[in-house]
Amino acid sequence: MTLRPERPATIRQVAERVGTSIATVSYVLNGKDRAMRKELREAVWTAARDLGYVGNAAARALKGMQRGLIAVLVPQFGNNFFTRICVEVEAVMRDAGSVVITGNSDEDPAQERSILERLIAQQIDGCIIAPALSRPENLELLARHGVPTVILERSIGADIPSTDFVGHDNFGAGLLATRQLIAAGHRRIAYAGWNSPIANIHDRIEGYRAALAEVDVVPDPAWVLIDDLTLAGGRQVGERLAGLDVTALVIGHHHELAKGILGELGRQGRRWPEDLSIVLIGTPEWRDLVRPSLACIERPEGEMGRRAAELLLKKVETPAHVAPALLLANTFLPGGSIAPPRVP
Amino acid sequence: MTLRPERPATIRQVAERVGTSIATVSYVLNGKDRAMRKELREAVWTAARDLGYVGNAAARALKGMQRGLIAVLVPQFGNNFFTRICVEVEAVMRDAGSVVITGNSDEDPAQERSILERLIAQQIDGCIIAPALSRPENLELLARHGVPTVILERSIGADIPSTDFVGHDNFGAGLLATRQLIAAGHRRIAYAGWNSPIANIHDRIEGYRAALAEVDVVPDPAWVLIDDLTLAGGRQVGERLAGLDVTALVIGHHHELAKGILGELGRQGRRWPEDLSIVLIGTPEWRDLVRPSLACIERPEGEMGRRAAELLLKKVETPAHVAPALLLANTFLPGGSIAPPRVP
Repeated sequence: MTLRPERPATIRQVAERVGTSIATVSYVLNGKDRAMRKELREAVWTAARDLGYVGNAAARALKGMQRGLIAVLVPQFGNNFFTRICVEVEAVMRDAGSVVITGNSDEDPAQERSILERLIAQQIDGCIIAPALSRPENLELLARHGVPTVILERSIGADIPSTDFVGHDNFGAGLLATRQLIAAGHRRIAYAGWNSPIANIHDRIEGYRAALAEVDVVPDPAWVLIDDLTLAGGRQVGERLAGLDVTALVIGHHHELAKGILGELGRQGRRWPEDLSIVLIGTPEWRDLVRPSLACIERPEGEMGRRAAELLLKKVETPAHVAPALLLANTFLPGGSIAPPRVP
Repeated sequence: MTLRPERPATIRQVAERVGTSIATVSYVLNGKDRAMRKELREAVWTAARDLGYVGNAAARALKGMQRGLIAVLVPQFGNNFFTRICVEVEAVMRDAGSVVITGNSDEDPAQERSILERLIAQQIDGCIIAPALSRPENLELLARHGVPTVILERSIGADIPSTDFVGHDNFGAGLLATRQLIAAGHRRIAYAGWNSPIANIHDRIEGYRAALAEVDVVPDPAWVLIDDLTLAGGRQVGERLAGLDVTALVIGHHHELAKGILGELGRQGRRWPEDLSIVLIGTPEWRDLVRPSLACIERPEGEMGRRAAELLLKKVETPAHVAPALLLANTFLPGGSIAPPRVP
């Protein structure tokens, strides 16, 4: 049983419905209809809409693509990690003759469900989704309707068949960031993270612990500072940091949290790297505008978008296609925020 | 004649189509259907989709809202000016029981047209659009299909009836920014802008000229530095700036251009405010992370989103409603980037 819609109408069917020529329909739909009767123009548009005609040859030519409409659902619209992924998805889909629309669940599974209900009713050809709070229930909605789906970034840890996964290596990000600080001589390293149930978040902390374990350091539980992914959360992390005897810090999230921490450090008069070495996971656009610049772990946002889009195109063409989960690697970007620890 | 779709189905109609109770339909559509027969579940979902049932009581209750689906089209997905507006539109629409999807025209009228064709075929309830390159032609497509539309930020300068406009005062932004530098004693003030045909851009430059005219200064044409809205464009502006005898700079765009200029100033070893006083139009998230912080003109993004959403809701309810164009005012945010000019 499939719930996918039938193929959209051809321009010939639109012409037949109106009782006019293909050329006339083409003229109207391409806006070259100034000289035509208003009734004819409106009849063409009505027929095109009623028949679900998609005015794009490339979209119709693409195997399996019905509407030429792909949805990307992200949980944080204001986080440029997701924006950069969306821009790359758009580029790939545009080459494939398809249009991308974006929805923002705002980390709320109920909102995510509302958006998906609307989009499924609109018969999207496929969906790339980073599930709100990594919860699986709304993926079942997509599966039930046979919407080809690629899961982005947030592994759901549940067994949903026929869905592909593209993410980056969160454990590796925590590991790589912490190793850079260890290589500079640090052992007393704090970690600032988000108080979220999302598995990715814990993977990053596990990477931090694993790097410290490589040099036989067991971090004091107080070194792991967890708070909201907001400016206020970052400021609180900065305040708690002031009471810790650490020489370095991994900031696990560039979005909002990092800004709050750096602002609070400024307020305290603490400078990087003199008072605290810092590595940040993520690449905010301000990383090389702050002085000194910040050492960062760059996540492969562009490649994630491209690979997710290519996988989705494959699934649209061959719904039974299942690819193994794809975890893309990160890159260390040096910066002026790492120095050896001061000798006390 | 109207091309708007008929009202969507009620839950009763879905139940009648399937031959089951309303309670059963509600259970299935709300995911509480674990104990039910698979065939029944699928029949409910098929009927809901076929009838265009929208599973949200608030959306159905909203006057004039058919699908509970609103589209926002922006020309620059990566520019947080638009992201902040979208977030506020979402908040208002969510309270109204409607879902927002976002499309990115990438300043390409052809891409904008492709997106609009798809969205009109999907029977959106309304559209908020910042037209790519401020061009009017795609607005006619929306008007022709009777889609309630609010134009955002980019005035199109053409006579499209039944569309409302919400923007901010671009002339006032240029005026306010330049006046701050004049008040600090500057007279030789450069302006860095985007080489774009969009009227807003020229309005900002006119505001800059008007402020200088208030103190009887006619700017040297070489002081107006125009380039691409990219990092590379900003770097080139920074290079050309090095050859000018100016003491202050208005940066007309925070997106990309500003980052390129500030990076190039850093490369040249020029510091603000000692070597150059700066006011920036726009509020990048890094404005108070750079040292010294940047004085900025804050645009009313949140209010723009809210007012645009409220106007659209009014137009959905009363399609003939036309409101006068709304130009919202900006606010000056002080920063450490303004100092009196050095005495030569």
